[in-house]
Amino acid sequence: MRDEVARACADYGGSMCEDGGQADLVLATSDRLPDRLRVRGVPEDWQETGEEFLVARRDGVTVVAGGGPAGLLYGLFHVVRMGERAFGGDFPAQRHRPAMRRRMLDHWDNVAVHPVMGQVERGYAGGSLFWADGGPRGDLDRVRAYGRLLAAVGVNAVAVNNVNVHAAEARLLTDRLGDVADIADVLRPYGIKVHLSVTFAAPVVLGGLPTADPLDEDVRGWWARATERVYEAIPDFGGYLVKADSEGQPGPFAYGRSHADGADLLAGALAPYGGVVHWRAFVYDHRQDWRDRSTDRARAAFDHFAPLDGRFAENAILQVKHGPMDFQVREPVSPVIAAMPRTRLAVEVQVTQEYTGQQRHVCYLAPMWREVLGFEPSGGRPVSGVVAELAGVSNAGDDPYWTGHPLAQANLYAFGRLAWDPGLDPAGILDEWIDLTFPDVAGEVRAPLHAIMDDSWERYERYTAPLGVGWMVRPGHHYGPDVDGYEYTPWGTYHFADRDGVGVDRTRATGTGYTGQYPEPWSETYESPETCPDELLLFFHHVPYGHVLKSGKTVIQHIYDTHFAGAEEVAELLPVWEKLAGPVDPALHARVRDLLHEQLRSAREWRDQINTYFFRKSGVPDAHGRRIY
Amino acid sequence: MRDEVARACADYGGSMCEDGGQADLVLATSDRLPDRLRVRGVPEDWQETGEEFLVARRDGVTVVAGGGPAGLLYGLFHVVRMGERAFGGDFPAQRHRPAMRRRMLDHWDNVAVHPVMGQVERGYAGGSLFWADGGPRGDLDRVRAYGRLLAAVGVNAVAVNNVNVHAAEARLLTDRLGDVADIADVLRPYGIKVHLSVTFAAPVVLGGLPTADPLDEDVRGWWARATERVYEAIPDFGGYLVKADSEGQPGPFAYGRSHADGADLLAGALAPYGGVVHWRAFVYDHRQDWRDRSTDRARAAFDHFAPLDGRFAENAILQVKHGPMDFQVREPVSPVIAAMPRTRLAVEVQVTQEYTGQQRHVCYLAPMWREVLGFEPSGGRPVSGVVAELAGVSNAGDDPYWTGHPLAQANLYAFGRLAWDPGLDPAGILDEWIDLTFPDVAGEVRAPLHAIMDDSWERYERYTAPLGVGWMVRPGHHYGPDVDGYEYTPWGTYHFADRDGVGVDRTRATGTGYTGQYPEPWSETYESPETCPDELLLFFHHVPYGHVLKSGKTVIQHIYDTHFAGAEEVAELLPVWEKLAGPVDPALHARVRDLLHEQLRSAREWRDQINTYFFRKSGVPDAHGRRIY
Repeated sequence: MRDEVARACADYGGSMCEDGGQADLVLATSDRLPDRLRVRGVPEDWQETGEEFLVARRDGVTVVAGGGPAGLLYGLFHVVRMGERAFGGDFPAQRHRPAMRRRMLDHWDNVAVHPVMGQVERGYAGGSLFWADGGPRGDLDRVRAYGRLLAAVGVNAVAVNNVNVHAAEARLLTDRLGDVADIADVLRPYGIKVHLSVTFAAPVVLGGLPTADPLDEDVRGWWARATERVYEAIPDFGGYLVKADSEGQPGPFAYGRSHADGADLLAGALAPYGGVVHWRAFVYDHRQDWRDRSTDRARAAFDHFAPLDGRFAENAILQVKHGPMDFQVREPVSPVIAAMPRTRLAVEVQVTQEYTGQQRHVCYLAPMWREVLGFEPSGGRPVSGVVAELAGVSNAGDDPYWTGHPLAQANLYAFGRLAWDPGLDPAGILDEWIDLTFPDVAGEVRAPLHAIMDDSWERYERYTAPLGVGWMVRPGHHYGPDVDGYEYTPWGTYHFADRDGVGVDRTRATGTGYTGQYPEPWSETYESPETCPDELLLFFHHVPYGHVLKSGKTVIQHIYDTHFAGAEEVAELLPVWEKLAGPVDPALHARVRDLLHEQLRSAREWRDQINTYFFRKSGVPDAHGRRIY
Repeated sequence: MRDEVARACADYGGSMCEDGGQADLVLATSDRLPDRLRVRGVPEDWQETGEEFLVARRDGVTVVAGGGPAGLLYGLFHVVRMGERAFGGDFPAQRHRPAMRRRMLDHWDNVAVHPVMGQVERGYAGGSLFWADGGPRGDLDRVRAYGRLLAAVGVNAVAVNNVNVHAAEARLLTDRLGDVADIADVLRPYGIKVHLSVTFAAPVVLGGLPTADPLDEDVRGWWARATERVYEAIPDFGGYLVKADSEGQPGPFAYGRSHADGADLLAGALAPYGGVVHWRAFVYDHRQDWRDRSTDRARAAFDHFAPLDGRFAENAILQVKHGPMDFQVREPVSPVIAAMPRTRLAVEVQVTQEYTGQQRHVCYLAPMWREVLGFEPSGGRPVSGVVAELAGVSNAGDDPYWTGHPLAQANLYAFGRLAWDPGLDPAGILDEWIDLTFPDVAGEVRAPLHAIMDDSWERYERYTAPLGVGWMVRPGHHYGPDVDGYEYTPWGTYHFADRDGVGVDRTRATGTGYTGQYPEPWSETYESPETCPDELLLFFHHVPYGHVLKSGKTVIQHIYDTHFAGAEEVAELLPVWEKLAGPVDPALHARVRDLLHEQLRSAREWRDQINTYFFRKSGVPDAHGRRIY
């Protein structure tokens, strides 16, 4: 904290004094605040995390009172966000506290380069900040800078390795623990706890036990001892993150045990130290038969986990992807969120743009997340009020701009801000990011950046998979279109397009019954194509191409129109960006320009493949006679 | 040669004597044949290669007279093939000489494991026989056994590395030349010359020159010196094999030179030593725009090379794939073959089953090759009379059965036999292979193996891509179906299926004009859907699903019928193979059984994906009401 203030003084002028005598700004935990500066409103009920803070200005002194060191740090960064306003006229005490108990970034970083997935699975920002070529990356200064960045946006937990735990990564739990401790030491001053992805098979692959059965005493003992050693090395260790029985990862099913049994095993080992286990609900059959239209991957998380509500330990957090599938550009909110009132839940979003342009396309995701967090699963209470935590798959790497696409930084920023306050307006968050990122030219870049970014998620949706159908991406890398790429695969990701229509019938009446996983009103709303929102129509219904949307357009004409429009809008971004050649740093400007050209190429490819595919299938000509191949 | 005979004596009894006094079998080059054994018919015009031989039996002595050591070796293996018949009643002299001057196997083996393609590109038989993990495999005994195997089928040339020449492989030409010489030493006694795939950019990447321009004096000098050193190490070195300006490989186009210029460069360097350059005609635009229906990859080889006829050096051999695309299960014969009468041609076939089941499916390819070699491009003279050589991409690796699928050995065998005598009957070749492979139980296994293998190529065709359309495979690995997998890619491999019809219009009248690359009668035959052979219909024409084939069936019903039939036939192979559990070695039997199960699974997957795809697109129900998903 002191270091941060000293750094700010060095960068921007000013000096530090210990007693706050002549200071413009006083920072103190509330119990150490000098009486004369005590502001009205310091609460009796500071959150036990110490992350809360008050900020006020009175008699020409700006005071930040923190509930603890973390609160003080967040208060300092809040003052930075306020800028000049923090030092203008007096203002009364404002209380700030995070909505989400844990605001966590999950790094899908591999220690050893994976032959298919590389150093960072689904990473589009260079290498890992933590690991390189089988060991620590060895640049703890960069990790420190990252910690500072995350603290500035309010993130307080980081998982340092991929949820798919391969051989080298498994050993972070044991003989490579020192590498994790090094990271923890660097992130600790920023209020960030380190979490570790572990393999459920660790007792077997690391401990040499014959089983990883969660009810086996030796297995429980092994986890207890392993966890004890972790806390010896990292006293404030956050906990474990587990992907079990999912896409080939080991899990409790192998022993005939439930996921509650599995999570309980690790929760039990962590409980004595105050650690938590994040147990992912992303469990489904990835060896499905495409011929079998009764199996529905969207149902899987609910079917697996809803019956277990109330069976998870106090320090187990069920981490649920925001949608029932896998981070598509448009999905309904997962029905698991409303189905488990007696379970601590984290909702997981993907900051890294696996399915949203892979940091080659501009796609500002705050509007999507805002929509998810504001969704009211069963009337009244929004998702942000139901879940205790927000987890995001990090989009940061060792790229000089942190995120590959410089504008993708805004997603990292918005993730932290929405986890702190899910009520924030995405455009307002973007303004904050613009002010902090382009402080000297914010006025010049603001309008163009809003033009480029505000609508970028829905723009991306327009030129990619239509009406919530999803999955029309190239298998494997998931970049660019391939309408049938997943249609005949075991992944459970189908659109069922034929010459007459398209979409997945997930109704109770005639389909997979997935709509029945929602409480009212959504169960009914989604059940009928008349009430189902247009943007999710093909997620819930198989309809003829001539089906008329609420917009008055047919499905097929909607597909054509949105794809022509989306690609055209991307073309219009280029001159907007060109206008920023002056105010913006030339290297950054050139990077974004190159990426916009790729985005345009790709958007046109999407437009043409999607339109051609559906024209060839439907035979319906475009009402406006535009070129379809 | 002596070693071979000694080995035969050791294995089967008998002894060797130098003067042939009491021998049952006398082997001698014709100039050293004792007068008393001189058989009638030793010609004056032995081929200069010395590969020819006579075999006769008179007065209880079987005599093999070879035109040279190689002929003697081939004669010995011929006697082995004859078996008891060679030692029964007398028979007059039979003259045997190879139809093809060079019978060459190209190994697409990498020295260093390629991150995507592995140790052997398109290899389905384990690792390489020559290379492992960046260096020589170090088992020259296995190479020797391979040489013996190849000599027994008449192969006389082997290219020891992949035509896609990566960094480690490029250096085989220079500082890693010793590794090639070691292989040459082992293969030499078997009459096999070693060839090397080289990169056209060698003067730059190995020689440090600023250019690889074929008309540059320094470049010519560099190749001359490099080649001189090769011949110092390997005096009977065969020559170079080059893939230039193809799929990313460097070539003369970069310098504004023609492929004749490029080939001439290497031919010039090799000529002093009697070496040859094999220059591949597989040149096309692999960055095509799928939207552009005027560009036709099938045209590319002809368009690039036909104008160069007569411009290639005497010792340059243009190596042409048998079809215009790339080893699909059904293609027309390449029009290049008829178009270059003043150029020495090799026709290239793929013994390795990249597109024909990857040695997991039984697919005996001799009928396909027989059809190609017997095709008469312009009336009268078959392909086998036009081309000087047959080249095959090897299907052999370090698998215990050599070829992964034990029955794929028959393809290796048939390749050599057809290169020696393109008039041989595929079923007869299979009989030879059965006799040699299952000598003790040939009678028992013969009929079942014919049932499994004779029709296996057309069976494979039935359940995969229909009517010559090709390319409905998973991109990348090329195993299993993906109808649209290549449809919107830059590879030039499309089927243009829409709700009304399918196929590529390659006519002069309305299509790409590819039919015009053929002389009469094919130019006319292929131009009209009425005269075009059914099995190539969709290669040449885009027709409605209701188009009636010569069989009387519609295209769509043909698709359904062949796919149901093909998969059903595969199911019927299993009980046939089970009957061989007794006579056949248990390990081999189990291997084939496992593979047949995979073939059945895969055939059903093909059936269902292809039928479903076309049903969804056409909307035409199966006339017999079978299950389509």
